[in-house]
Amino acid sequence: MMNYPNFAFQINFRSQTSKARLGRLVTPHGIVETPAFIFCATKAAIKGATPQDMWREETQIILSNTYHLMLQPGPEIVDQMGGLHHFMGWRGPMLTDSGGFQIFSLGHGSVAEEVKGRRHSSRPKSLLKINEEGATFKSYIDGKKHVLTPERSIQVQRSLRADLIVVLDECTPFHVDKAYTEKSMHLSHRWAERSLREFQRGEAGIQALYGITQGGIYPDLRKVSAEFVNSLPFFGHAVGGSLGADKSQMAEVVEMAMEPLDPSRPVHLLGIGGISDIFYGVKQGIDTFDCVHPTRLARHGGALVPPQVWESLGENPKGREHMNLRNARFREDPSPIDASCGCQTCKSVSRSYLHHLLKAGELLAMQMLTIHNIHFMNRLLKAIRNAIASDKLDQEEKKWVA
Amino acid sequence: MMNYPNFAFQINFRSQTSKARLGRLVTPHGIVETPAFIFCATKAAIKGATPQDMWREETQIILSNTYHLMLQPGPEIVDQMGGLHHFMGWRGPMLTDSGGFQIFSLGHGSVAEEVKGRRHSSRPKSLLKINEEGATFKSYIDGKKHVLTPERSIQVQRSLRADLIVVLDECTPFHVDKAYTEKSMHLSHRWAERSLREFQRGEAGIQALYGITQGGIYPDLRKVSAEFVNSLPFFGHAVGGSLGADKSQMAEVVEMAMEPLDPSRPVHLLGIGGISDIFYGVKQGIDTFDCVHPTRLARHGGALVPPQVWESLGENPKGREHMNLRNARFREDPSPIDASCGCQTCKSVSRSYLHHLLKAGELLAMQMLTIHNIHFMNRLLKAIRNAIASDKLDQEEKKWVA
Repeated sequence: MMNYPNFAFQINFRSQTSKARLGRLVTPHGIVETPAFIFCATKAAIKGATPQDMWREETQIILSNTYHLMLQPGPEIVDQMGGLHHFMGWRGPMLTDSGGFQIFSLGHGSVAEEVKGRRHSSRPKSLLKINEEGATFKSYIDGKKHVLTPERSIQVQRSLRADLIVVLDECTPFHVDKAYTEKSMHLSHRWAERSLREFQRGEAGIQALYGITQGGIYPDLRKVSAEFVNSLPFFGHAVGGSLGADKSQMAEVVEMAMEPLDPSRPVHLLGIGGISDIFYGVKQGIDTFDCVHPTRLARHGGALVPPQVWESLGENPKGREHMNLRNARFREDPSPIDASCGCQTCKSVSRSYLHHLLKAGELLAMQMLTIHNIHFMNRLLKAIRNAIASDKLDQEEKKWVA
Repeated sequence: MMNYPNFAFQINFRSQTSKARLGRLVTPHGIVETPAFIFCATKAAIKGATPQDMWREETQIILSNTYHLMLQPGPEIVDQMGGLHHFMGWRGPMLTDSGGFQIFSLGHGSVAEEVKGRRHSSRPKSLLKINEEGATFKSYIDGKKHVLTPERSIQVQRSLRADLIVVLDECTPFHVDKAYTEKSMHLSHRWAERSLREFQRGEAGIQALYGITQGGIYPDLRKVSAEFVNSLPFFGHAVGGSLGADKSQMAEVVEMAMEPLDPSRPVHLLGIGGISDIFYGVKQGIDTFDCVHPTRLARHGGALVPPQVWESLGENPKGREHMNLRNARFREDPSPIDASCGCQTCKSVSRSYLHHLLKAGELLAMQMLTIHNIHFMNRLLKAIRNAIASDKLDQEEKKWVA
């Protein structure tokens, strides 16, 4: 077993009624109480919030995307500036991904959406070649050719210096058949071994490596892949590969992926951040989640709200996880987004004001809604942790999901 | 003399070497130490900064534009939401203008630029008619016809509830001749009397009214106009009318406008915010300034810096008031914008990071540069106040203007 000095994952409490657990993920930049939500600072910046805004709204951990930073400003610049934490002024724990997801999703022109079972997009295909060596792709910035190998991904992530880093894998669209999924899984396993070897050449105690469990929607493959990652000295695991075509299949796949995974390691669920998905994942033993949804939604005028907000408006909250402040109904509404929310936005302005800002096209609308949604997610995960501690997760879920 | 309960302007110190003075502008929402800079929250929002950002960076006072708020969300909504302070979550002193400047500037298609001697723009003309009654214009939002009379401007500003409000005047382009300027001045004087009458019908102690001195670039007209506004019970005065075609003419016009004005009232210089202009204005006895420049510049990648920053880069600071962070020279520059600056941005990130954000098109670039420029202006005005107190304004100016 590999040693990860300066890192630890302590499980302090296990639910009796589900696989939910309370953990402490210890990193050189601080401790993350799990389950936790990881916010996406894709290009080393949260769109609409400063690091100080993030701290004030009680954010524990953020991530950046290796793919974007590799192309702009480039890992050399980030390294020269002292690594991501110093570069962007964020002093808490950080994760970077391998760069693979964006290459494959932009490359296939649709997998980013497909993996999560969403609609097809029409982005240009930029993935030129996948072979044993790695993936060749064109930069979305200047069209230049780049090769991302498992070794290169680790080298770039070493330069970026996030606390938690991830092996390179092949991300397949959900529609591929079992034969392709199996072939791809074995390729990803070989890439994982190469990633780990490259990682072990570096200095210990600065970063911790996550392996990724593959196998798509096939239970037997999920088992093979879990046993494979369990056998290698990864610090943690991420649930990768196709999660299926829709939410119900995703639930099944997460369950079959989690079942055989080493329960002593922290598990991250890649790219999932819906409120009901988080409750489901937590009950399957997922420790961390990430998704662009809360911050992206904010930039489009959406504020995350619990069912109680719809009830106070005399409406059925069923299936609604956010409120669109562009809606004319909020024009003269003097209430804050959510009277029970303690974020800076809810403490200072009304729905009417936010509606005005959105109508007037003011930048500040995005900032204020981003602050609210960040606070909402941190408050949600805190409520989840408290509910796990008292083994009342199902009751808690009713307060957040209608 | 009219009484302004809850308001006062105390002059605590007068320079021996210029007309500069230190004052305290007392309002129901707090005290403004003058000279002060007023930031533009045009549509009831500072673009790129929350009220909390403004306070943290030591902002004393902001303004909003009656023209924009009249059309969106409308004065009734702001009134219903408890007035501007409550609507936008800003608890400090506020000013609104009369709405005239935007009507005339958008109306003439170019006067906004011309008044300050800048290049012509090609915006559509929306001013339909000016007569004794007021100005008729088309809304830039939906093309609807609106009439702004002096009475209506005061009524709208009463609904908005800023502390300091301003009479409606006709804003003329600088190229008009003396005959037109004189005719326009008399119209503005009649509108000022009507504005004042309308103001006096309202409740005392909530808002204080500023008159506007007219007369364009003509010394005799400036004198007539100053005597006119001095004779009416305004709380303060704003320097209006054409300030000429360029900076040197502006200096002359400000001097001739200030000379005959009642020295016991606070004086605001409309729409001027260049660093050298502020030093000049302060020496002529101007107490408050406003301009969109600091926040607009930030959104275009510009950071205000003192000459010392250029000197530390081994460059001639002559005539340079800002640094463009988009410039490739900052790509690998680990220094903050200005090592002597105490703003949140300079305390947390480098020029290299800001360059990256601008290149990547990140929203956060605008936020971080806005925070810096706001702090810069507040720091500049504080330095000016300290220098006046020790009668060393000329020495201080050398630190800020090269």
